[in-house]
Amino acid sequence: MKKVLLTGFDPFGGETTNPAWEAVARLRGRRYEGFEVEVRQVPTVFRTSLRVLRQAMLEVRPNVVIGVGQAGGRSDIAVERVAINLDDARIPDNDGEQPLDLPISEDGPAAYWSTLPVKAIAAGIREAGIPASVSLSAGSFVCNHLFYGLRHLIATEFTACRGGFLHVPFLPAQTIGRAPTPSMSLEHMVNAIEIAAMASMRYGKDIAAIEGRLD
Amino acid sequence: MKKVLLTGFDPFGGETTNPAWEAVARLRGRRYEGFEVEVRQVPTVFRTSLRVLRQAMLEVRPNVVIGVGQAGGRSDIAVERVAINLDDARIPDNDGEQPLDLPISEDGPAAYWSTLPVKAIAAGIREAGIPASVSLSAGSFVCNHLFYGLRHLIATEFTACRGGFLHVPFLPAQTIGRAPTPSMSLEHMVNAIEIAAMASMRYGKDIAAIEGRLD
Amino acid sequence: MKKVLLTGFDPFGGETTNPAWEAVARLRGRRYEGFEVEVRQVPTVFRTSLRVLRQAMLEVRPNVVIGVGQAGGRSDIAVERVAINLDDARIPDNDGEQPLDLPISEDGPAAYWSTLPVKAIAAGIREAGIPASVSLSAGSFVCNHLFYGLRHLIATEFTACRGGFLHVPFLPAQTIGRAPTPSMSLEHMVNAIEIAAMASMRYGKDIAAIEGRLD
Amino acid sequence: MKKVLLTGFDPFGGETTNPAWEAVARLRGRRYEGFEVEVRQVPTVFRTSLRVLRQAMLEVRPNVVIGVGQAGGRSDIAVERVAINLDDARIPDNDGEQPLDLPISEDGPAAYWSTLPVKAIAAGIREAGIPASVSLSAGSFVCNHLFYGLRHLIATEFTACRGGFLHVPFLPAQTIGRAPTPSMSLEHMVNAIEIAAMASMRYGKDIAAIEGRLD
Repeated sequence: MKKVLLTGFDPFGGETTNPAWEAVARLRGRRYEGFEVEVRQVPTVFRTSLRVLRQAMLEVRPNVVIGVGQAGGRSDIAVERVAINLDDARIPDNDGEQPLDLPISEDGPAAYWSTLPVKAIAAGIREAGIPASVSLSAGSFVCNHLFYGLRHLIATEFTACRGGFLHVPFLPAQTIGRAPTPSMSLEHMVNAIEIAAMASMRYGKDIAAIEGRLD
Repeated sequence: MKKVLLTGFDPFGGETTNPAWEAVARLRGRRYEGFEVEVRQVPTVFRTSLRVLRQAMLEVRPNVVIGVGQAGGRSDIAVERVAINLDDARIPDNDGEQPLDLPISEDGPAAYWSTLPVKAIAAGIREAGIPASVSLSAGSFVCNHLFYGLRHLIATEFTACRGGFLHVPFLPAQTIGRAPTPSMSLEHMVNAIEIAAMASMRYGKDIAAIEGRLD
Repeated sequence: MKKVLLTGFDPFGGETTNPAWEAVARLRGRRYEGFEVEVRQVPTVFRTSLRVLRQAMLEVRPNVVIGVGQAGGRSDIAVERVAINLDDARIPDNDGEQPLDLPISEDGPAAYWSTLPVKAIAAGIREAGIPASVSLSAGSFVCNHLFYGLRHLIATEFTACRGGFLHVPFLPAQTIGRAPTPSMSLEHMVNAIEIAAMASMRYGKDIAAIEGRLD
Repeated sequence: MKKVLLTGFDPFGGETTNPAWEAVARLRGRRYEGFEVEVRQVPTVFRTSLRVLRQAMLEVRPNVVIGVGQAGGRSDIAVERVAINLDDARIPDNDGEQPLDLPISEDGPAAYWSTLPVKAIAAGIREAGIPASVSLSAGSFVCNHLFYGLRHLIATEFTACRGGFLHVPFLPAQTIGRAPTPSMSLEHMVNAIEIAAMASMRYGKDIAAIEGRLD
């Protein structure tokens, strides 16, 4: 049976929950036509997150890996298209590390593209009535670190695997007491990740669609 | 059995759905401890909406009326505190009328307060993990028209009844193709309206809480 | 010579500057065709602000009073249309008072309308290339308190005077270190207030224009 | 005399003005300690914009090139850190071309870093009271195209030159009639670009500062 590995981070930045992990955990062991899902929690920690990811990839031998992270303040699902070779932390990670202006891989390229069909994923999520778009920046914190690291692992070690990253908004309860901040229900996040997994298995190459960004 | 009357508008402004009515319709005939719910759709039309409301109040003889409307662009449930005596339409209503700078009632006061426990409602919704706040403006379109008219009916004809108004965000599907716009799931809206009905029946007077707005 | 009295608040809420006062102070003693400007700083304090305002009105005997306050987070000039009879403070004022759910005037109406030509003011500001709109809520803090109190003074004591209120955004420097927050240059604020003063002196009644709000 | 070349685009996307060019044009021929400024307008057209840029670089022989573009909807100056090898247009360019998913350079890397001191520039602009931040995406339209092309020219042909890109918000007048949208005055934009030019000439390497992005 083919395998899709989903990862979600533990809570960070003072939050007590991480919607990415909450949503990913709901999909543990789910079976779909032609593949089944394995899930792993990864720590919001530079380096360690990549060791956990690599270990999981060795165990699961996935055909597709989708990392999922929280993007507080967004209103839709962000299907990340590009990871950059940069650690530049605005806040400390969960081990207290705060790297500034460091490359993730000394000998890696400046950026890697997602090898998932990002436009097909975004379109599929929207067809389910859930807002989604292709994003051109996953930031410079642990989310981008995991995404870049995943793609470097695929480029160098797991060459048959494909991989990418999704950002999800806050859960509604996380926005209480904050200034007006968008959120998304857990059910919609779970559904969106499910659609991303299915589209990743179905599409060999991406669809052509207008998803570009002006700035 | 005591009665709570909920109203929701039909779609307007080019939308094919109105989340207010979608959510209200889900609560048709629901029974809670001590009261049951009746629902009515009202047209997004100045004047006519108030005739439909008055007819419904004559039929149902409600203890509490809660009008619900769509506030596209908001990220949380807005518990409206004040209705103003002003029709000033940005777009035509569903009958093509677009009144500018007209009073709703020639002899009514400049404003009416909600007689629902607005802070208790907002607090109750937030306790359920759904973002909510007290709002000081319901606009100057048909939502404010219905809210002001409801309060005028209560002040002049249905004096034992209490009433107020809630604004709900777009549904997720409505935000697709718009620039980043917040939304809320139908389930959370339904739950929030349910909590508003229960709090309205339970609280004689409102709670003291910090809900004010700086501007 | 006819007189326009402009008021601006001192800084509050942890800010070291208040753009309202900065802008108003620039207009001290300015003369225009048919009127001259007097300016006063008012403290961001419930009650005291109104005593300072009344004293200034006794001294200046203005034909028009325009209160100006800071509305952090707005992107345009808000020409306030309605003041409500409610003190409901989210934060303490500059004397440490934080009233909740109190009327401003025990025997005043629920709301007062601005007696300035709000739509003509907004249109005039926009013609100068500065974004502006008519707003239906001045909040429930000291800005609304001053606006309501001003209108109550006009209704009861200074019956020949006309008055209203403007909210201005943050200055650019105030937004540094905040999440993305809109701002406006001091020059544009000064120009907008000047236009508001001139339009208030020129227009006996307001223009008809589409300025209503949906919610 | 050392030279800084500034470029700004012509209007696009239905706008009649482009704040980038308006601001850049104000700096034509300015002299600062140790360098002078040359300015060029570039068309908002894929490919052609790069031909115009290369021609200007051949003529001017600049030490530093700073491209400037409009990022409608932003509230601050964005100092772009990374350009990606992707043309993916949301709207047609000014020649009617709308490339989807095409590389800018067939043999270029996936991304280029700005070789300007991006954190020093952002800090310097903020010290002048103007909001600014380091951005990790210049989009996938002509702005990113010019930025990537500039860096490719530097990498392959003008190796002694350094270069990068700034995005500026809408001008206030451009936001009129739009939903609440942030803007910035022309004076602040001009000042920010001036600071960027001076910092680019002064700093050999960037400062260390917390400017990273979570997502």
